[in-house]
Amino acid sequence: MADANELQLFNDLARQLRADSIRCTTAAGSGHPTSGMSAADLMAVLQAKYQRYDYNNPEHPNNDHLIFSKGHACPVLYAMYRAAEAITDEDLLSLRKFGSIYEGHPTPIIPHIDAATGSLGQGLAIAVGVAIAGKHIEKLPYKVWCLLGDSEMAEGSNYEALMVASEQGLDNLIAIVDVNKLGQRGETALGHDMATYAARVSAFGWKVLIVDGHNVAEIDEAYAEAVKHTGSPVCILAKTEKGGGVSWLAGAPGWHGKALKPDEAEKALAELAQAGPIAGYTVKPQLPEDLTPAPFTGDAPLVLPSYEVGTKVAVRKAYGDTLAALGKSRGNLFAVDAEVGNSTYTESLGKVAPERLFQVYIAEQVMVGVAQGLDVQNKNTFAATFAAFFCRAYDQIRMGAISGAKLRLVGTHAGVSIGEDGASQMALEDLAMMRSIHGSTVLYPSDAVSCAHLMSLMADYDGIAYLRATREATAVIYPATETFEIGGSKTLREGTTATVIAAGITLIEALQAADTLASEGINIRVIDLYSIKPVDEAAILKAATETEHLIVVEDHWPEGGLGDVVAATLTKNCVAPKKFSHLAIPQMPRSGKPDELLAAYGIDSHAIIKVVKG
Amino acid sequence: MADANELQLFNDLARQLRADSIRCTTAAGSGHPTSGMSAADLMAVLQAKYQRYDYNNPEHPNNDHLIFSKGHACPVLYAMYRAAEAITDEDLLSLRKFGSIYEGHPTPIIPHIDAATGSLGQGLAIAVGVAIAGKHIEKLPYKVWCLLGDSEMAEGSNYEALMVASEQGLDNLIAIVDVNKLGQRGETALGHDMATYAARVSAFGWKVLIVDGHNVAEIDEAYAEAVKHTGSPVCILAKTEKGGGVSWLAGAPGWHGKALKPDEAEKALAELAQAGPIAGYTVKPQLPEDLTPAPFTGDAPLVLPSYEVGTKVAVRKAYGDTLAALGKSRGNLFAVDAEVGNSTYTESLGKVAPERLFQVYIAEQVMVGVAQGLDVQNKNTFAATFAAFFCRAYDQIRMGAISGAKLRLVGTHAGVSIGEDGASQMALEDLAMMRSIHGSTVLYPSDAVSCAHLMSLMADYDGIAYLRATREATAVIYPATETFEIGGSKTLREGTTATVIAAGITLIEALQAADTLASEGINIRVIDLYSIKPVDEAAILKAATETEHLIVVEDHWPEGGLGDVVAATLTKNCVAPKKFSHLAIPQMPRSGKPDELLAAYGIDSHAIIKVVKG
Repeated sequence: MADANELQLFNDLARQLRADSIRCTTAAGSGHPTSGMSAADLMAVLQAKYQRYDYNNPEHPNNDHLIFSKGHACPVLYAMYRAAEAITDEDLLSLRKFGSIYEGHPTPIIPHIDAATGSLGQGLAIAVGVAIAGKHIEKLPYKVWCLLGDSEMAEGSNYEALMVASEQGLDNLIAIVDVNKLGQRGETALGHDMATYAARVSAFGWKVLIVDGHNVAEIDEAYAEAVKHTGSPVCILAKTEKGGGVSWLAGAPGWHGKALKPDEAEKALAELAQAGPIAGYTVKPQLPEDLTPAPFTGDAPLVLPSYEVGTKVAVRKAYGDTLAALGKSRGNLFAVDAEVGNSTYTESLGKVAPERLFQVYIAEQVMVGVAQGLDVQNKNTFAATFAAFFCRAYDQIRMGAISGAKLRLVGTHAGVSIGEDGASQMALEDLAMMRSIHGSTVLYPSDAVSCAHLMSLMADYDGIAYLRATREATAVIYPATETFEIGGSKTLREGTTATVIAAGITLIEALQAADTLASEGINIRVIDLYSIKPVDEAAILKAATETEHLIVVEDHWPEGGLGDVVAATLTKNCVAPKKFSHLAIPQMPRSGKPDELLAAYGIDSHAIIKVVKG
Repeated sequence: MADANELQLFNDLARQLRADSIRCTTAAGSGHPTSGMSAADLMAVLQAKYQRYDYNNPEHPNNDHLIFSKGHACPVLYAMYRAAEAITDEDLLSLRKFGSIYEGHPTPIIPHIDAATGSLGQGLAIAVGVAIAGKHIEKLPYKVWCLLGDSEMAEGSNYEALMVASEQGLDNLIAIVDVNKLGQRGETALGHDMATYAARVSAFGWKVLIVDGHNVAEIDEAYAEAVKHTGSPVCILAKTEKGGGVSWLAGAPGWHGKALKPDEAEKALAELAQAGPIAGYTVKPQLPEDLTPAPFTGDAPLVLPSYEVGTKVAVRKAYGDTLAALGKSRGNLFAVDAEVGNSTYTESLGKVAPERLFQVYIAEQVMVGVAQGLDVQNKNTFAATFAAFFCRAYDQIRMGAISGAKLRLVGTHAGVSIGEDGASQMALEDLAMMRSIHGSTVLYPSDAVSCAHLMSLMADYDGIAYLRATREATAVIYPATETFEIGGSKTLREGTTATVIAAGITLIEALQAADTLASEGINIRVIDLYSIKPVDEAAILKAATETEHLIVVEDHWPEGGLGDVVAATLTKNCVAPKKFSHLAIPQMPRSGKPDELLAAYGIDSHAIIKVVKG
């Protein structure tokens, strides 16, 4: 129980947080003061008594984490920094101004931010990843706090995160839902129906505490219970009022995402000041403990799996083999599986290091969120599912790029070559999707050896890397000694009649076509464009100028894949091919045998031969 | 209560459904017999007694709907068709063969299928849309049945659908969850913990009934109760065994997605045959009633909103105005909002026809699912949110294309020009994402007038149409009499020094640049490429050949947008520009004023002038 002095401090700090939320948004002329004001008491008690964080050392391994899933409420977060003297008042008032790191939604440009938020329903999954790192990997006692809005409890992604958090027994994770009843355009579906929120969250295995989110004594008691609770994560459901603390803003409609005009701000600050000073409080969190993370099992030289040229190995199998090899070599190597690990071969890591493979079941959004949360704690993490199902987590990947996260994503079962399962399982847009992620690298190996090499490069890539893997077993074409690089390509056949640019399964078809044509005396160049982004521009330009016919073949829609990459390269360099053909999937594919489908949609060796012969 | 004869029929039909599930998958050499076998009793009772469906008239307005969210279980669905004599045994045995419409996952190529499934967690949201149509629009008593797997209850998307279903009071919707305990790679998170499933689903406002899914009497009672229940949707949680009905398959691990080998199939069929015949049962659903859907309010001529050239109007505002105009003109015009209708202006429809605007709160996946479900019932439906947040529903949009759905999607707040809210709210990949949807049309109007015209074209587009809308108010540039077409463009300024190809906000910047340059005696061509897909190839080719410098300017990442479209067009036609520049967003943008950001990232009029002057 808090004493009177503590309660006074909580209220004083909360008042200042409210005032600062108003001041900085009014100075900006835009933003979300009222969404922060509803959480001001919750955040004041947290900062004054429960949070353990060293603002002078954001990388301290024992720091608590605080993730604002309701990112638009960041004015109150920046006000907390100000109260901790981590930033100046000038910093606070630079909110939303160009050049300021105090943006409209928080990003990790601020050293105290773990992950960019602002697309709702994403913070909790990342918090789950951080909490997994703390509890299961580092075995440190820090807490992960996640502030959510009530509106975002409509996002399905949060239920994936709730599920995984309890499955993983994350009693170091405390979610705080600021139930201020008002969404962007009016009341939320549930309003202040705290019992229904409680039923939903507790049904997912969480301990639930309901508090009056403007009563600092109740908040204090709930936090005290939450930090002691073991066996499950805790969710504090706080009944609040949007704009709470100022009589004419509290619970009033029409104030979402609106800064107060200067005269309105003056009036609001005057009302707050009636209860006591609204500035001058310095309240720093307690410093964290000084414990050492559990050590990794240590590093050993990487021994890539080896494959005989000419044998048939699925690229997805090579992904699994290489993941296991990386896992053996590095203690700091983890993977997340969305319940398809036996098809993607992610389960291979589980065979060598079961404690480093995390299962999230069929929930791709939280899979990416957990991978990102592990990356926050510098855990080198791969996440894999069928390439098509990464579409489910595209928003998470997009936000991951804003966070500057290192995500290592592997999409298996790409293209029509998966065969009988039909179009729903055939990724035909994944290259387009992943290319348009800022700073991404997109790799598409054609055989097991190149997959193994590219995987080892991915493991050290500083950004979002995506590898596309074929389902079918295909011929190993490279000797183990071959070298590969991000941005590279391989010219595997030479000729001047035409160049075929391909990758993955179509590269194998292109080689067959080239060999058949060679036996007829027609020599073509074949380029393995295994690095789609960045791309080997020189190889493309050379091919366009040195050969008579440029042919791009891909197991992908015509838009956004190899064809667009080649065209963008040529146009950028003002080069036109002498003749150009683009073989891609021309219509919605159907079920059938892989070979039938490659033929039917015109991307197999016969189709290539026909186009070459023209 | 069912009598002994009925119970016998249920069991006989279930046995045949199991046998046929085995037969067709063994004939195919792949597929999911065991995932259908767990649902065989559930489906037998449904078909024999509760489903009302005219197989001779799949378009009958009073037909019940049956959506297999667990699409991989389709062998049992095709077996149901066979039992109803809607298809032949030869049809059934064509499963997964190239050319057969009985694919590995169901698609609407089959006339009895409403929506393609196979990406888990999507069927229920579509069922919600169909049920909204039945209950709130057509006011017909048909039921919407949705079969889900237990594994897919990990997908967050299902909780969005559960939420909206109860919010909308859909007592015509009955979900059946086949809790067979085994996922793809082992046991699910919850196994047979029926109480936890029940707690989760009932917390979302559903009536829940738990049954032994292999006890036809229990199933019968549950269906009887479900069809009578009013006030909320009903979920039947059925405890089943994967492979149920064959002793050595029932509940056995390692049988996910595996066809039985011929000898195994023979053994399984022999065991089934011990209980009675496994073929020869013809069981048709009852025919539906013959009621007339509630009439639409009727059609009136479309009066597009009008805007004065030179005034400033946000394109998103024009979207809202035009949506309202379309709504006034057509009774069959609906919209779905994900709680941002006051920002996207979708709320404008609510002002003229509140009963035709459906609110799903901040849940983009179910927003698209509901739109698709409404389309199943031929309701012309728009769905809008911030363009960035369509990333959250990319998998649903992808699957919508497989369904051949007509989705009319509007993404507002695109690009850095949104300003202070920061990168999380700036769609910079939406053009890439939407271009790579099969059969899509992608439109990007630069002003209110072109937006209004393009909206009216979108309303009749037979496929997935996406319109990108700018947040900021920009100048109206077209007179109301101007005409536009899908695949068109406008050449707004003439000159030979350079051509600037732009759309949306950058088109406005390009016009400013052109006018400034003209005042200095430099004349450039400016093309409004408002139709990104399909694109006006002739205009691009002419510009590349007739002018000295081709400049593409876009408020988008360099990948997948206007730049790639222009490059693909040129390369396809073997044309190289004489000089080429591509102005797109070069780095992760920050918060700032719209003008500051357009300048900082080099896509404003000054940047264009600088590039023209070279």
